[in-house]
Amino acid sequence: MNSITVSHSDLKSSSGEQVRAAIRSGSYDGHTAGLAAGKLQCNLAILPEEYALDFLRFCQRNPKPCPVVGVSDTGSPNLPTLGHNIDIRSDVSKYRIFRDGVLNGEVMDVSDVWSDDLVTVALGCSFTFENALLRNDIPVRHIETGRNVPMFRSNIDLAPAGRFAGQMVVTMRPIPEEQVAQAKAISSKFPQAHGSPIAVGDPSQIGIADLSKPDWGDAVEVRAGEIPVYWACGVTPQNVLLDAKLPICITHSPGHMLISDVAEDAETTILPKN
Amino acid sequence: MNSITVSHSDLKSSSGEQVRAAIRSGSYDGHTAGLAAGKLQCNLAILPEEYALDFLRFCQRNPKPCPVVGVSDTGSPNLPTLGHNIDIRSDVSKYRIFRDGVLNGEVMDVSDVWSDDLVTVALGCSFTFENALLRNDIPVRHIETGRNVPMFRSNIDLAPAGRFAGQMVVTMRPIPEEQVAQAKAISSKFPQAHGSPIAVGDPSQIGIADLSKPDWGDAVEVRAGEIPVYWACGVTPQNVLLDAKLPICITHSPGHMLISDVAEDAETTILPKN
Repeated sequence: MNSITVSHSDLKSSSGEQVRAAIRSGSYDGHTAGLAAGKLQCNLAILPEEYALDFLRFCQRNPKPCPVVGVSDTGSPNLPTLGHNIDIRSDVSKYRIFRDGVLNGEVMDVSDVWSDDLVTVALGCSFTFENALLRNDIPVRHIETGRNVPMFRSNIDLAPAGRFAGQMVVTMRPIPEEQVAQAKAISSKFPQAHGSPIAVGDPSQIGIADLSKPDWGDAVEVRAGEIPVYWACGVTPQNVLLDAKLPICITHSPGHMLISDVAEDAETTILPKN
Repeated sequence: MNSITVSHSDLKSSSGEQVRAAIRSGSYDGHTAGLAAGKLQCNLAILPEEYALDFLRFCQRNPKPCPVVGVSDTGSPNLPTLGHNIDIRSDVSKYRIFRDGVLNGEVMDVSDVWSDDLVTVALGCSFTFENALLRNDIPVRHIETGRNVPMFRSNIDLAPAGRFAGQMVVTMRPIPEEQVAQAKAISSKFPQAHGSPIAVGDPSQIGIADLSKPDWGDAVEVRAGEIPVYWACGVTPQNVLLDAKLPICITHSPGHMLISDVAEDAETTILPKN
């Protein structure tokens, strides 16, 4: 593997394929926010085929936290409906490997733990609708302030499937009161990226005790005239996978997403053939 | 089983649960178009668990012809995210049973062929966007003239998964030229019901030789000032299932859909809990 020779700013105007090539060669290991502008980025869950049917059922029943945008053939590292020549063993800049629900390592390549019974499930992520909010002049506080989005465990039960169950994790973004309706309308156009908000306003209605103490990410200020708005979060399936204590499970590391070649505003997440 | 005592018009203002009860008791065996207004109706594919993961992968890769709206647990006749107390063995008014890809019977109840390894996959259907077109004063010729929608084999290859592969089946609706853009915009809002058109205009571009000779359904007139518009069709997964020659596979009979309790204009096809 090469040493890290490429910076985030070097890749800002690169295509998805170019970013994946830099990652694959080992020359970029950073986060992917803002890279390959306009392309769908994906959360990642790689798990043994034995559990894949139940996991897909779980995602189908919980589409807002778990929007499936791609599923590999068993044992195949490719995701042809998401991008050209994707090799999921090397094309994500940081992976987490879990065994029996316990973190076993954070690596830049999973070729050495790959096996013929693994299935990759790619899930939509909030970058898609955040970009759409910004394009429409709706502020996104954690981006403005260079932080990670605040994430909270909610008391919203998920519809179970097999060993997959739990409560929804949500993100919170403070939105100016007069723009809440517009933020709802915009995000509802992206069902492949968590869709419209899960809740608006009082955090206690969904079991959140204190907005200043997120379970993951960074706290952000809710200013006068702003309303906290909650969206389903891609950490939900990751949590559920850990609780399921699978013998092996591989995810991306937070912020280190799979970059696809699919336009993030396309009607479906299937790459057109041509 | 009771004899048929209920007519289509008796059920026009019934709820989804009431229609299913009439069907379950054996007192209604007709088609479901126009019943339980505003509720999502579903195409049905019931198949052995052994093939379910590949079939779900196939549907994920071909979301316009195969929009998954519900998946059962293995062996369970219930679909709790689609409706209250659905028993999929009895709640559809006519089923087709296929063995090794050959039609083996058309029945009103499949309890006697049910087994613990069957998985039900429910798929969205075009009734949803047709109702939306009609609400927006866009004419739907086959409904106006009391016919079945014309369906055609296209030359559009589907993305394969396991033994599931083939070409897309499309429906054709003639739309006044000045309303085509609106028809596209309206149908694109229903990704769970085939979404926006696959093609517009010349049938030869998608391999259709003669619009007056549909492969299924009835021919309809394309009048002066109208453009033929093509949408992905729910017959696609049925055809693909037959070609796969599964030992057993159960579908609804055309027009005899599963009626859910989910609102057809809801953001997701998951019934809210309350």
